[in-house]
Amino acid sequence: MWKEEDNKLKGTFKFDTFIEAFSFMTEVAMTAEKMNHHPDWRNVYNTVEINLSTHDAGNMVTSKDRQLAQRIEASYNRCRNVI
Amino acid sequence: MWKEEDNKLKGTFKFDTFIEAFSFMTEVAMTAEKMNHHPDWRNVYNTVEINLSTHDAGNMVTSKDRQLAQRIEASYNRCRNVI
Amino acid sequence: MWKEEDNKLKGTFKFDTFIEAFSFMTEVAMTAEKMNHHPDWRNVYNTVEINLSTHDAGNMVTSKDRQLAQRIEASYNRCRNVI
Amino acid sequence: MWKEEDNKLKGTFKFDTFIEAFSFMTEVAMTAEKMNHHPDWRNVYNTVEINLSTHDAGNMVTSKDRQLAQRIEASYNRCRNVI
Repeated sequence: MWKEEDNKLKGTFKFDTFIEAFSFMTEVAMTAEKMNHHPDWRNVYNTVEINLSTHDAGNMVTSKDRQLAQRIEASYNRCRNVI
Repeated sequence: MWKEEDNKLKGTFKFDTFIEAFSFMTEVAMTAEKMNHHPDWRNVYNTVEINLSTHDAGNMVTSKDRQLAQRIEASYNRCRNVI
Repeated sequence: MWKEEDNKLKGTFKFDTFIEAFSFMTEVAMTAEKMNHHPDWRNVYNTVEINLSTHDAGNMVTSKDRQLAQRIEASYNRCRNVI
Repeated sequence: MWKEEDNKLKGTFKFDTFIEAFSFMTEVAMTAEKMNHHPDWRNVYNTVEINLSTHDAGNMVTSKDRQLAQRIEASYNRCRNVI
């Protein structure tokens, strides 16, 4: 689900609708704020692209990024429609 | 999941965490705003209580309430942790 | 803005629209989750009623409630339409 | 606040905190969903970059984009801290 590239953890998350995508974003936003570690993310309709790196560590991937990535993945797996 | 009582559709939705409950609320809020039909709802930590009735129909249960109830239930079923 | 009654801090917050009310709720939800101290709250259309007390202190009003109340008030004052 | 460039309306919106930025995003998301016209947007901490164009019109700027831009601007002006 994640790949490490250009000193970032990158993930792309797809949903059926904008509403589902934005509810996922709300869950991620609350998790990120609680960790005080925030994503660089982009949304277009049903797709959310997330890049994680640690500003205070010279924009490298650190354990904080891996921890947030894991939680984002858990949120995604909880709510996606499995066929 | 819903019961009709006192001219309202009433449902109670439980989650593991406040974050999950509020993400569900975000999904419901967007759906409700799009339908221009809004719930009377209460949240305490991981629990969301929703009452639906139609103000413009003298606070009775109408097809708008049944439609919103159905969509709320779909959102809930999509994301809950099934054991 | 707040009154203390029945061992709770109670406040009612009015907005022009449901969208504005729910954006305020998002701000409150993120603040509450970060403090790990959550409200008992109800929303109907453009109105948000919030009750604060501390479960772990036997449902009394504590300094955690006063702190959350102050932050909620700051969020409300930041965004309300002043005439 | 907006500039037209590369067949897009582009705006950048700054806030004091991530919580304030994401509450603004919630307001924009609900407005966009109601209009059934969605932004291409990116968030990093307290900054939200929004690009608007109309997919169904060959990714050109249309009146739908101008209407959404105006509403986004109204949301921003309502809640920003004026010094």
